[in-house]
Amino acid sequence: MTDVTVSLGANKYGKAENRVVRIYRDTPRHEIVDLNVTSQLRGQAFSDSFLTGDNSLIVATDTQKNTAFAFAKEVGIPSPEEYLLALGNHFVSEFDWVEGGLWQAEQYEWERITAGGRPHDHSFVRRGQATRLAAVQKADGATHVIGGIRDLTVLKSSGSAFTGFPRDRYTTLVETDDRIMATSVTGRWRFLPEAVTAGIDYNALYAEVVDVMLDVFASVHSLALQQTLFAMGKAVIEARPEIAEVRFAMPNKHHFVYDLSPFGLDNPNEVFYAADRPYGLIEGTVTRDGAAPSPEAWLDIPAFV
Amino acid sequence: MTDVTVSLGANKYGKAENRVVRIYRDTPRHEIVDLNVTSQLRGQAFSDSFLTGDNSLIVATDTQKNTAFAFAKEVGIPSPEEYLLALGNHFVSEFDWVEGGLWQAEQYEWERITAGGRPHDHSFVRRGQATRLAAVQKADGATHVIGGIRDLTVLKSSGSAFTGFPRDRYTTLVETDDRIMATSVTGRWRFLPEAVTAGIDYNALYAEVVDVMLDVFASVHSLALQQTLFAMGKAVIEARPEIAEVRFAMPNKHHFVYDLSPFGLDNPNEVFYAADRPYGLIEGTVTRDGAAPSPEAWLDIPAFV
Amino acid sequence: MTDVTVSLGANKYGKAENRVVRIYRDTPRHEIVDLNVTSQLRGQAFSDSFLTGDNSLIVATDTQKNTAFAFAKEVGIPSPEEYLLALGNHFVSEFDWVEGGLWQAEQYEWERITAGGRPHDHSFVRRGQATRLAAVQKADGATHVIGGIRDLTVLKSSGSAFTGFPRDRYTTLVETDDRIMATSVTGRWRFLPEAVTAGIDYNALYAEVVDVMLDVFASVHSLALQQTLFAMGKAVIEARPEIAEVRFAMPNKHHFVYDLSPFGLDNPNEVFYAADRPYGLIEGTVTRDGAAPSPEAWLDIPAFV
Amino acid sequence: MTDVTVSLGANKYGKAENRVVRIYRDTPRHEIVDLNVTSQLRGQAFSDSFLTGDNSLIVATDTQKNTAFAFAKEVGIPSPEEYLLALGNHFVSEFDWVEGGLWQAEQYEWERITAGGRPHDHSFVRRGQATRLAAVQKADGATHVIGGIRDLTVLKSSGSAFTGFPRDRYTTLVETDDRIMATSVTGRWRFLPEAVTAGIDYNALYAEVVDVMLDVFASVHSLALQQTLFAMGKAVIEARPEIAEVRFAMPNKHHFVYDLSPFGLDNPNEVFYAADRPYGLIEGTVTRDGAAPSPEAWLDIPAFV
Repeated sequence: MTDVTVSLGANKYGKAENRVVRIYRDTPRHEIVDLNVTSQLRGQAFSDSFLTGDNSLIVATDTQKNTAFAFAKEVGIPSPEEYLLALGNHFVSEFDWVEGGLWQAEQYEWERITAGGRPHDHSFVRRGQATRLAAVQKADGATHVIGGIRDLTVLKSSGSAFTGFPRDRYTTLVETDDRIMATSVTGRWRFLPEAVTAGIDYNALYAEVVDVMLDVFASVHSLALQQTLFAMGKAVIEARPEIAEVRFAMPNKHHFVYDLSPFGLDNPNEVFYAADRPYGLIEGTVTRDGAAPSPEAWLDIPAFV
Repeated sequence: MTDVTVSLGANKYGKAENRVVRIYRDTPRHEIVDLNVTSQLRGQAFSDSFLTGDNSLIVATDTQKNTAFAFAKEVGIPSPEEYLLALGNHFVSEFDWVEGGLWQAEQYEWERITAGGRPHDHSFVRRGQATRLAAVQKADGATHVIGGIRDLTVLKSSGSAFTGFPRDRYTTLVETDDRIMATSVTGRWRFLPEAVTAGIDYNALYAEVVDVMLDVFASVHSLALQQTLFAMGKAVIEARPEIAEVRFAMPNKHHFVYDLSPFGLDNPNEVFYAADRPYGLIEGTVTRDGAAPSPEAWLDIPAFV
Repeated sequence: MTDVTVSLGANKYGKAENRVVRIYRDTPRHEIVDLNVTSQLRGQAFSDSFLTGDNSLIVATDTQKNTAFAFAKEVGIPSPEEYLLALGNHFVSEFDWVEGGLWQAEQYEWERITAGGRPHDHSFVRRGQATRLAAVQKADGATHVIGGIRDLTVLKSSGSAFTGFPRDRYTTLVETDDRIMATSVTGRWRFLPEAVTAGIDYNALYAEVVDVMLDVFASVHSLALQQTLFAMGKAVIEARPEIAEVRFAMPNKHHFVYDLSPFGLDNPNEVFYAADRPYGLIEGTVTRDGAAPSPEAWLDIPAFV
Repeated sequence: MTDVTVSLGANKYGKAENRVVRIYRDTPRHEIVDLNVTSQLRGQAFSDSFLTGDNSLIVATDTQKNTAFAFAKEVGIPSPEEYLLALGNHFVSEFDWVEGGLWQAEQYEWERITAGGRPHDHSFVRRGQATRLAAVQKADGATHVIGGIRDLTVLKSSGSAFTGFPRDRYTTLVETDDRIMATSVTGRWRFLPEAVTAGIDYNALYAEVVDVMLDVFASVHSLALQQTLFAMGKAVIEARPEIAEVRFAMPNKHHFVYDLSPFGLDNPNEVFYAADRPYGLIEGTVTRDGAAPSPEAWLDIPAFV
């Protein structure tokens, strides 16, 4: 065993899940931005900390945290994407040995409370419908921006079928031309580099992407969740020229027709049992033709989920 | 040790977390009701199962499950409260040895998706903002109905103070006359028995209670979360004559002003760190004067949370 | 609506989930105690905060937190029960308007890591098998101590039956004389007041109670989970004269025999599908004959779970 | 918008989180294997389902589920790795259009209960300390096996420092030469293809890898969590010639010395506050020199966590 030697491979480090809440209160009508921010750095210079415990080039994770909070004031958070871009630019310029990194945020949305018949100035209720995602990747000298969403839970009580699949020894599933289809959408969209450079209204874009996804989910008569997934990605790319590709993970959250026949009752798709596990898991990518692929943009970002 | 004897005390049993989804599809415009239902029975007759394993009077938990699904068809789910009332009435009448029980439901709300500019007939997105609660208690020959809500997360970025508290050796907290106040409301309201008998539009009532709670949370200039809690309960009881009492649990979800002074930055309540734990936990009951108290209505229901 | 008046009912407040970690390092061989502590106070004097926002008698939840951490040093944590007793005694004696309260802790257990063939002095691995519970209740001038456990997950792959239950229109369950029985035990045991006064080795008692519960779960040929529950409680009370009563919640975590017959395979209780929801939920109390009942000891403590 | 065209990119689909429990009961002394199994397939042939909803080549996710349960009987589960290999081989050979896929499992460990002084034949208690991971990847005609672990939570109360890091405008962290270091290890190890072919005792290897990781965590005087991570990976590779590389994610679960000085108390690293968020997040790879890298083995497997 004495002749075994090893090396350090891919690595990064930083501070995860900084819960940064920014209140804009320049007028009596406050605004709130509520983020969960993770900052991680990469660079050859960090090897010594792994190999010998030499921290002389380790930008402390506590420093990354402080910077995340300070930038909420200095830069502000016009959108999670722009805030993360500023953070990433800071680290690679402030410390010349930082070669790249990954900056990510979840955003929790709040709605203004209606009080006394009108929207209140400084009181909010958490929306809860889904979580917005954003990421900035710096690798090989390039900068990539990725937007996204998690836990957008949708269901259609008709307009979904699943038929025509092959049957082998282990196949027992019955074909159906009318079922509940439900999923909890996780999606991530990569922006074209030239669009990032030109400037994007990320907040307006996010709102439109959500609307498009919901519209397509509702409108498509689905022969398979795969088909719905592709149609949703296609529509998103058609709607927004800034987007190069979309990745989706869609669990097929099964709703089984409950067998009421032992009780002498019909059940024409009226009473369902919503199952937790197992669930189908459909994952797919839709890419804009002509857009250059960019695998390095997705470094360390979950493949789909 | 041979002279130690023991007895069976309070007990109940049943099936928990039946995920019942009911689709109304009598017209092309479907409706969805999505519940998580728990049914539990009480009765002296069940002692033998505990004492000797004699199950001859044990209504199987599987039977309780089947009944929950069958009733979604036979009775329907006009509201979770009415559905649970039907379930409870069934068990105490069908099996004369069932003396009482507790039937509970969580309801997940769905919104109709807008597609092609108008609300879609059979496609929905989960609302996610809070979870509605309902419970029916049968004990000592009486029937009690309790409505509720969980995880209604609200925040005000101003209009909240905390001052004037006593100081001892362990007190370090600084007084503040402007802070973020955030909480995630769990509330339960008990209906007056005579209102239950007379009939209640539970769905409309729930919507109004939520609106009242939000309005008061927003409007009250808060000197303490306790004060806000009481004001919310008072307003709920004033708004709806059917409600005898309200119980609230309100965690004080701390948002701490991040100290930016080491970086030469002011922070006039603009950048906050949202902490997970520990959190304040304020719990209180507001009762309608003149309404008879009913501790048995709350049997086995969490005191506050 | 102008004639509606309301009153403040039951309430309490405090700081929840203080994550107190105490290291004993008087010798090179360290010891660790890892708690999640909640402190809450009750008293008529706190009404003004609810009614008018007057905090002049409100012992700040931040002060309760500081005290919890300070007592980990001043008093130490010989056992969670003794530490909570000290905390509770402090608050009712330090502030004469505090009439009572509830102090609770979860304890996470750690095992010493074996390194170089022997137990390491200051390195630990979290055990993870279950969470220990403790509570001290002060109400009506009395002090009550309750120990407990949560998430002790056990399974027997034989020695469990369920037969002889009544059948109605909604019954489809097939009788079985050999099934998997699995549950995740939550149990709480109340100590006799005179035993608390005399002094108890709470840590040794906890270890013995767990052993007794496991032994009985394994040994009893179970005709119903109810029967196993009662036998476990009986054995605990027989084993320890300090214990007045035991409350258990035992979800019946269903493991269904997977139907392999479509594939031409036998399945004599070899391959199971472990379901998440719904689950049976069996709850029961076992009391020592002759011990005075004490419902106030359980004030605001979950009925079973 | 009419000139926008899109294509289907990377995708896969299958059934996630099949809770397969296998009991070996050939003798009175039963054995239990408890898995959470996910099966997903890849292949050019699946495109039509995405593009047009043509399912004629879609091996239903329900069929994948059935196969997972059937194989627990037909093949058995000598180890999660061998079981997943059998599953993967089945799908690529049974359906010639299946080009590859990813099969993953979590394993929950159970210990035999001691009853009446000796290990019981068929009663078990869940261990809970960590979750074992396994994955089989089939891509580009090759087969890769990856073992792993999640949530191995460890803590050392001394023998950890963090000093010598650079300071910039946003740095406030104080250097320390004695702190608590705690982490929850997620690790994955890729097996050398030739070792897989030759056959591996995966269960014995897993046990040894855990022991080695714990031993190194305890023994290394840590100058940085990075250093500990690398040392742990190096030791694993030195201990087992079958392992080509190890990937670790180690959150730095901060334990802060609680400031007791306002209360006139010393706190020489005795009382700590365990924080939830934010946390440091250190991720790194250790590779065996001379082993061929294999990025395709890690396709769609989380980069670190």
